[in-house]
Amino acid sequence: MPTYPNIKYPNFKFDVTHRASNGARLGTLTTPHGSIPTPNYIFCGTKASIKTLSPMQMKEAKTDIILSNAYHLMIQPGAELVEKMGGLHKFMQWDGPMLTDSGGFQVFSMGNPSCADEIKGTNRQKGNSLLKITEQGAEFRAYTDGRKLMLNPEISMDIQRKLGADLIVQMDECTPYQVTKDYTAKSMEMSMRWGDRSLTAFEKTHDGKQGLYGVVQGGIYEDLRKQSAEYVASRPFFGTAIGGCLGGEDDEMYGILEWCQSLNHPDRPIHFLGIGRIKDIFKAVPYGIDTFDCVMPTRIARHGSALIKGHPSEKINLLNAKYRDDPEPLDPSLDIPASRDYSKAYIHHLFKAGEALAHQIVTQHNVAVINKLMREVRMAIKNDTLDQLEKEWIPT
Amino acid sequence: MPTYPNIKYPNFKFDVTHRASNGARLGTLTTPHGSIPTPNYIFCGTKASIKTLSPMQMKEAKTDIILSNAYHLMIQPGAELVEKMGGLHKFMQWDGPMLTDSGGFQVFSMGNPSCADEIKGTNRQKGNSLLKITEQGAEFRAYTDGRKLMLNPEISMDIQRKLGADLIVQMDECTPYQVTKDYTAKSMEMSMRWGDRSLTAFEKTHDGKQGLYGVVQGGIYEDLRKQSAEYVASRPFFGTAIGGCLGGEDDEMYGILEWCQSLNHPDRPIHFLGIGRIKDIFKAVPYGIDTFDCVMPTRIARHGSALIKGHPSEKINLLNAKYRDDPEPLDPSLDIPASRDYSKAYIHHLFKAGEALAHQIVTQHNVAVINKLMREVRMAIKNDTLDQLEKEWIPT
Repeated sequence: MPTYPNIKYPNFKFDVTHRASNGARLGTLTTPHGSIPTPNYIFCGTKASIKTLSPMQMKEAKTDIILSNAYHLMIQPGAELVEKMGGLHKFMQWDGPMLTDSGGFQVFSMGNPSCADEIKGTNRQKGNSLLKITEQGAEFRAYTDGRKLMLNPEISMDIQRKLGADLIVQMDECTPYQVTKDYTAKSMEMSMRWGDRSLTAFEKTHDGKQGLYGVVQGGIYEDLRKQSAEYVASRPFFGTAIGGCLGGEDDEMYGILEWCQSLNHPDRPIHFLGIGRIKDIFKAVPYGIDTFDCVMPTRIARHGSALIKGHPSEKINLLNAKYRDDPEPLDPSLDIPASRDYSKAYIHHLFKAGEALAHQIVTQHNVAVINKLMREVRMAIKNDTLDQLEKEWIPT
Repeated sequence: MPTYPNIKYPNFKFDVTHRASNGARLGTLTTPHGSIPTPNYIFCGTKASIKTLSPMQMKEAKTDIILSNAYHLMIQPGAELVEKMGGLHKFMQWDGPMLTDSGGFQVFSMGNPSCADEIKGTNRQKGNSLLKITEQGAEFRAYTDGRKLMLNPEISMDIQRKLGADLIVQMDECTPYQVTKDYTAKSMEMSMRWGDRSLTAFEKTHDGKQGLYGVVQGGIYEDLRKQSAEYVASRPFFGTAIGGCLGGEDDEMYGILEWCQSLNHPDRPIHFLGIGRIKDIFKAVPYGIDTFDCVMPTRIARHGSALIKGHPSEKINLLNAKYRDDPEPLDPSLDIPASRDYSKAYIHHLFKAGEALAHQIVTQHNVAVINKLMREVRMAIKNDTLDQLEKEWIPT
């Protein structure tokens, strides 16, 4: 018999305010650090910083919510230090809603770098190594100094409590894509047991300041995904996260959402872990997805790619020689200097000259584009015009 | 007989508004892009960007004036491109006063890296090479792609006109420190002839939008410095710049200022090229120096050093382990988030984690500190309390 405590979240709320005929929904997600409209996008501040941007610049780009990674922070500077400094919100000067993940994804992607490659692009931390996975947890070496560390449900809950984000995530095993159904099933079952351990550990110190998400695993297998979705819905999690390595093809990924849709708890916010290209937003929202996260907008910015509404490939590469003398800004309709004032020629120059300001400008632009996308997606859900909006953003 | 044209600067003005008993002076320097109070500090935007900061962030740190380097911009993106994009102000979105240098310093420091080392700290551009110096000019290879380039007074004036900064500088030879008096004299004489060629070239296209500075050279030799100061004062330059490799010892450097002081044109702004530690400001202002420039505030920031008023060595190193759990901000009296809101512990973490935001925060802080210093220096000149202020900034 599984054991898990009963848990209430008096300071959290998720209200579905509109359901569209295509399955998409509008909502309001309330946390102790404010409410955000959904669907929404959670930007990645991996090591307690959105790379190249200050919190003010994130707000200027109309950001509602960010996340940080328990795995990176447990290694540097350590959860104890963040707690001593008043928690992650104060530490990084972000006063809005925030999420941390469990650390599991990064730990397991060491053992299966192809998993990270699938979800996030090549992402191997040099010097990382996963030493051992057992029922108890995962043992690994820190990428900074090689010291041996342990991550398991109890430790992850403790770390995430010390970090103090509003939304936190159960410890799970992120099952690789290229494994057998048998392995996937066993892994999913362990993630369920780890879910119950996460709930038990969470409940012991729960003071109402954090909301815990369960994670749906089960790989690319319909029966396993359904089983996992039912498990998460049956437990007192505040939210549902869809995780795992989601297949090699887009259709496979969206198929997984379809299988889970009717089994996810209908009154809880649903987060799609690590996914967030523009086309993914349009495809996933009709399956009831409420929040997304992905390093894409900020990562591609540092390689010179600016997201552009109406571009068939979602983005342009500012390193391309044709932008050398392009006097036009990235998107004058976005009301921030990064998008409105600098010419593409100037940003092209900054990249060619190796100037850090290039990263700042394009990162802020990409964040502003995604936030504009999410505002327009919410409006389109209300007006039942999502298909039309998709064509505006990604013409074929 | 030297030949040089008569030149007026109807859109420029320099008013000395107060002369203190110690020789320091207050003034107002007016350019087509606005007026600034002097003494003031010109921050280095070498490649058309203050490293890691946007123009808005420079303004937030109360910056009045910046510079950019003709040498770097002639190589990448090229002066023609900047002109085509509407000039440097528009290109980099800085609408305040701006200076460019002639490019000479960087070209000659290739042949004499010790010169750059003296003034700016180690600064060797890998792959650079000075091919030839003749009366005609200097031939060198671009550090980017090895193509052969020429810099001489006519070319420098043409480049600086295309860039379009308010204040521009004559082409000179930056004489190395470790050379004979004979070499220094010959070099200085060539710089004078280049000064006249600069004036002649400048005058041909002068449309009132730029003010030209002459450069005092002469190394560490009193008679040469005086000769050079007299030359610059005798020619229709808008401003006076004190250049060259200024000796190995601080006292030698300040001695040079003393020799020139009575010979510099009394009604023109005096710029001290490439010098700008906090102690230099206090030492140089009594010799009538009106503006400074140095990469120091922005460069040391990227290595983790934050300028601190009242610290005997002017700065602290945030990488030091003692800041790991320091909850205090850098300087709460500075009214910007970079100095007021983030803890030293957070900035320490960002450096340890290799996060670019560290550079942005400390760079903006250092710029704000220097701008505060200059405000306080101006107030102290007015109140005749400069010695007292120096003790507040740099206690012994």
